[in-house]
Amino acid sequence: MNLKIALLAGDGIGPEVILQAKKALYAIGVVYDHEFVFEDAFVGAIAIEKTGNPLPEQTLNLCLNTDAVLFGAIGDPKYDNDPDSKVRPEQGLLKLRKELGLFANIRPIKPYDSLLDSSPLKRKIIEGADFIIFRELTGGVYFGEKKLNEAGTFASDLCEYSEEEISRITHLAFKSAQKRRKKVTLVDKANVLETSRLWRKVVKKVAEDYPEVILDFLFVDNAAMQIILNPKQFDVILTENLFGDILSDEASVITGSIGLLASASLGHTNALFEPIHGSYPQATGKNIANPIASILSAAMLLEHFGLHKEAKKVYEAVEKAIEDNAVTVDLKSDSKFGTNEVGDFIANFI
Amino acid sequence: MNLKIALLAGDGIGPEVILQAKKALYAIGVVYDHEFVFEDAFVGAIAIEKTGNPLPEQTLNLCLNTDAVLFGAIGDPKYDNDPDSKVRPEQGLLKLRKELGLFANIRPIKPYDSLLDSSPLKRKIIEGADFIIFRELTGGVYFGEKKLNEAGTFASDLCEYSEEEISRITHLAFKSAQKRRKKVTLVDKANVLETSRLWRKVVKKVAEDYPEVILDFLFVDNAAMQIILNPKQFDVILTENLFGDILSDEASVITGSIGLLASASLGHTNALFEPIHGSYPQATGKNIANPIASILSAAMLLEHFGLHKEAKKVYEAVEKAIEDNAVTVDLKSDSKFGTNEVGDFIANFI
Ligand SMILES: CC(C)[C@H](C(=O)O)[C@@H](O)C(=O)O
Ligand SMILES: CC(C)[C@H](C(=O)O)[C@@H](O)C(=O)O
Repeated sequence: MNLKIALLAGDGIGPEVILQAKKALYAIGVVYDHEFVFEDAFVGAIAIEKTGNPLPEQTLNLCLNTDAVLFGAIGDPKYDNDPDSKVRPEQGLLKLRKELGLFANIRPIKPYDSLLDSSPLKRKIIEGADFIIFRELTGGVYFGEKKLNEAGTFASDLCEYSEEEISRITHLAFKSAQKRRKKVTLVDKANVLETSRLWRKVVKKVAEDYPEVILDFLFVDNAAMQIILNPKQFDVILTENLFGDILSDEASVITGSIGLLASASLGHTNALFEPIHGSYPQATGKNIANPIASILSAAMLLEHFGLHKEAKKVYEAVEKAIEDNAVTVDLKSDSKFGTNEVGDFIANFI
Repeated sequence: MNLKIALLAGDGIGPEVILQAKKALYAIGVVYDHEFVFEDAFVGAIAIEKTGNPLPEQTLNLCLNTDAVLFGAIGDPKYDNDPDSKVRPEQGLLKLRKELGLFANIRPIKPYDSLLDSSPLKRKIIEGADFIIFRELTGGVYFGEKKLNEAGTFASDLCEYSEEEISRITHLAFKSAQKRRKKVTLVDKANVLETSRLWRKVVKKVAEDYPEVILDFLFVDNAAMQIILNPKQFDVILTENLFGDILSDEASVITGSIGLLASASLGHTNALFEPIHGSYPQATGKNIANPIASILSAAMLLEHFGLHKEAKKVYEAVEKAIEDNAVTVDLKSDSKFGTNEVGDFIANFI
């Protein structure tokens, strides 16, 4: 297969981890005889520095005209601590999601056997947990109108959802549940929010098309608790943009490190793959960031194109690295393996 | 001291647990020679049933004219599962918070020594954790305009904050930190939300009045993870309404049971005390709900009125109950103690 892949390394540890994902894909290409053509482009703080724009025209055009995007990380404390700055790195990622129509962000959560003792949670709580979060990605309070009055004393953010935005991701979530343990849990705040009540209504209606899947509801506050108390109860969690952001970072504790979690962002025609961790500025350039989330994002990319054998090979390589303790310090505090060494281990295994 | 206390038992397990708090306060009154006068009123689903209104005029008037409100729980699945219903129990609580001006909800999180092994988190993670969440309670997306178009295909919720709303709770949080370990962590989503950027700006300004307190920032997604990874890093968490709702339910896992967590909601002139758990409909009438959160809410009430000796007595009684395993099934699955028996144990100890 021929695939053209845009590499958007982004900020912080992004370039270091994306390089390891590229190595893994390159190895897969050699072994299974595929041609992966990579093209780099700037996004985020680095793009602001180079061009003044967190998502330069050129980057967007590249992404619109490739088969898939592999994304690193975005964000820089310089902008976070300046509430008045008008340009921010995150705008690059949000605009990219919107322009590519990436409405569904899919985040699988499943601990590795050999890491069952690395979680802050007790082994008996997480052993056997295996769920996927379907996070809506192009709606909600992320994209509604934002206002700040002239005096700078009053601000607002609008959270909006349409039936269409809800139903398209709901179908994906139910299709996924059909192939799994046949349960969808909608997380919302329907006792307070109008948008949540619309979610409930639309999701109930869509659920009628999938009679073999059980639909169940949780308020987001309760869900934040249940994910820790009893993660095994979940199969597919479906939720809106902001709740999905919060709950998926939270759920990362089940696996022992957020450095292990990959995600796929899908639209009708485009697809982007990225680790769920951020730009981790404190680790930048130190060769300590965990590249596994990026490498697993590459595996999700392979799966997306039907390359299941190849994806499986990457999963195996990652498992082998974890079993052999070829991991970064977030997983083994006295480890001698850096970002690069883990990447090499995995590429070599492949 | 003479105190007039409005008892709003509310829905579900509310009446059962509030009764135990009343017993504890009654015992305190007898031992320390205070006169607590209780007056009951309806709120929530039960109030809708009786009057059509989740916060009847009479209830509101009572609350406006008492020294404090002791609140049980609110909510009924009947309404949750009917997205079209125009009247909902929760409106009663939200209106009450707004009308009483209860802008600061204060939720202390600290595990009991004898329960360090009851949490889903490992002992080493939670031992020594001790923080307070200051949740803004009368602003944000809870109270902004809600819209649904005629066709029922498009909904929105507006999240709004003013400088004044942010600064008044910020002062309370910093005053609390001054008496503690002198650290405030603002939780927001300033990389996306305009309201969060206003929070950051205002909180930074207020912080200048408290030079001995360290101010620190976390994005809400990261905070949801950090609360589990390393809860000991926190002293005072300050956050807006919805984030506070989510994070405090999540943080309850540190203590082993949400049935242990009390909260105080304070305004300039009024005060309300309530457990953070909900109406727990499945447990209603079964004498299995944990009354400790309600009893601790009563202790927070005593403290609020400067009755520190008395509050301490209640804390001691609760600790004794926990040590002696005089607890409900959420804490000890084979326990023979019901809601009533735990309440009696604590009142007798006092
Ligand atoms: C960087 C930020 C805007 C982003 C988000 O909130 O969506 C990140 O947290 C994520 O989860 O991908
Ligand atoms: C019942 C509900 C409206 C309420 C809230 O979201 O504030 C509850 O969850 C709480 O935390 O007090």
